[in-house]
Amino acid sequence: MSIDSYEASRKRSDEIRADLPEHPEKYTMLTGDRPTGRLHLGHYFGTIRERVALQDLGITTRIIIADYQVITDRDTTANIADNVRNMVVDYLACGIDPAKTIIFTHSAVPALNQLMLPFLSLVTESELLRNPTVKAEQDASGHALTGLLLTYPVHQACDILFCKGNIVPVGKDQMPHIEQTRQIARRFNERYGHVFPEPDGLLNDAPAIPGLDGRKMSKSYGNAISLSATDAETAKLIKKSQTDADRNITYDPEGRPGVSALLTTAALCTGRAEADIAAEIGDGGSGTLKKYVTESVNAYLAPIRERREELLGDMGYIEDVLHEGNRRANEIANATLDEVRETMGMVY
Amino acid sequence: MSIDSYEASRKRSDEIRADLPEHPEKYTMLTGDRPTGRLHLGHYFGTIRERVALQDLGITTRIIIADYQVITDRDTTANIADNVRNMVVDYLACGIDPAKTIIFTHSAVPALNQLMLPFLSLVTESELLRNPTVKAEQDASGHALTGLLLTYPVHQACDILFCKGNIVPVGKDQMPHIEQTRQIARRFNERYGHVFPEPDGLLNDAPAIPGLDGRKMSKSYGNAISLSATDAETAKLIKKSQTDADRNITYDPEGRPGVSALLTTAALCTGRAEADIAAEIGDGGSGTLKKYVTESVNAYLAPIRERREELLGDMGYIEDVLHEGNRRANEIANATLDEVRETMGMVY
Repeated sequence: MSIDSYEASRKRSDEIRADLPEHPEKYTMLTGDRPTGRLHLGHYFGTIRERVALQDLGITTRIIIADYQVITDRDTTANIADNVRNMVVDYLACGIDPAKTIIFTHSAVPALNQLMLPFLSLVTESELLRNPTVKAEQDASGHALTGLLLTYPVHQACDILFCKGNIVPVGKDQMPHIEQTRQIARRFNERYGHVFPEPDGLLNDAPAIPGLDGRKMSKSYGNAISLSATDAETAKLIKKSQTDADRNITYDPEGRPGVSALLTTAALCTGRAEADIAAEIGDGGSGTLKKYVTESVNAYLAPIRERREELLGDMGYIEDVLHEGNRRANEIANATLDEVRETMGMVY
Repeated sequence: MSIDSYEASRKRSDEIRADLPEHPEKYTMLTGDRPTGRLHLGHYFGTIRERVALQDLGITTRIIIADYQVITDRDTTANIADNVRNMVVDYLACGIDPAKTIIFTHSAVPALNQLMLPFLSLVTESELLRNPTVKAEQDASGHALTGLLLTYPVHQACDILFCKGNIVPVGKDQMPHIEQTRQIARRFNERYGHVFPEPDGLLNDAPAIPGLDGRKMSKSYGNAISLSATDAETAKLIKKSQTDADRNITYDPEGRPGVSALLTTAALCTGRAEADIAAEIGDGGSGTLKKYVTESVNAYLAPIRERREELLGDMGYIEDVLHEGNRRANEIANATLDEVRETMGMVY
């Protein structure tokens, strides 16, 4: 993606962000997650919190649980049903409201997936290979590029366009995906007739959420605090996080990644600035810091965890939410596919 | 495809061909066509006639009208609905019986198309690129390889496996496709649990049907006699076909492609040998030959054309056949997709 087109995307994103509270009815947002494990603080502060805020502004919100994406880079679907159900529990506990937001699974919506066929005809192999996520995941996976990973930008276009999503919250590195979806929408509209919006990325300006070791928070690094962890598990995880020998606590992400990650975690949970927390702890050492962080995290997550427990006691309700979300997603996908067939002349 | 595996495939094909009349109930056949124009004699003698024979043996038969394949190598779906309806008319006129055979369109069966997602995870990019049809069509198309053409072997696997097809009539050059479908079925079954048969190609031993100029019969060469042509159109097409100045008619495909193609056309329509027809005409010249060919073709096609006309007078019935075929194909595809979801643990 060129710097010019990145700047243009950022400008559109800023304009939309200003317009969202004014005209929420103009926007349909599509977001989602891969059900590979439990949601953690990185997900929460990185995207879930914003989704709830946008939902509550009155923006039409759809969340896809991207179960087929689990097999883009692994050979098993073990625990997938459990992961999906817990993801719904996490969403609801965080404030996603199924009366306002459709939560659905990728594999439950055939008409969405059928869009793959016409959309694949609109992109070239070399355009697929240029996608940076395809490249990055391919490099990370260490085995041959599968057809599913290669066509990932097209699945994503289907996910966004089936519900005519026009905004997608993204980080800077995901902007090229949105560009590819825009291109598919534009080419379809030009070739067959107008059906799809050209969605915009809604750039997330939140700083990357550090894990307990200062690297990006990720379950696979063992540096993540799950929303579903108990207070005691949270305390234990924070206690064993690596800090340093300097008893004077200061915020210095480059020089003191462990200490600074803890400060950022507490800052996010308390709404205070990292430097203020550091100054307050002063010479108290990492023990005092860890105690403060543990209390801040557990206090912040207490209502979410309480709601989680309630929901876990009524899994029938979770099933209902998913069934109803899938039913509504199918309704939308069938209507869009009908429109696509009509526009392509495939009505028999 | 190695010579060894080709020989193994041929052997299986011969065994199956011997077993078909004995155990028709063991076989489900999937075949189909791209709706890019009217069916012609090449289609008829190359495949349609055999489909009717297998249907009438009691083999479970499904025919896909592969409408999305129209856009693997072109940018338009112009006339597609008309082509699809006329294809149904052609099938029925040739003896395909909708009470025995399901005729359906690719774009009408979302659950079939969803199989793309799990199946794409089972093949690598380099396996897709090795497919000879992908290569050949790519070379012929003269523009960049689209995602749809690249993933063509996977669509074909979906078409065959959604209905658990276990035999697919093919020419020798299509055997590698069947090998790729077998591989996808095998990998799915090994990874998740047994759902799919490994289909076999049923090798077609009919010689290639020549067009009027001796090249392969193809609408795009202008050398094809459509089933739907009138007697007069047929006569005109045969009259202007290129022969040679030698009044003595002999069968010599290499040396006299035009004369020999006419002899083969007459041979197919009369059940006589090319050499016998040539001997009978002797020194009569190409005028006599063309008259004989015209009469043979028009006599052979007369009942098919008569039935065509009747069917064209009742397009409501053609719509009904297609709707019922699509309904039944969806029923089968939904059941298979449910089984796939179950096997992959994606039941929520």
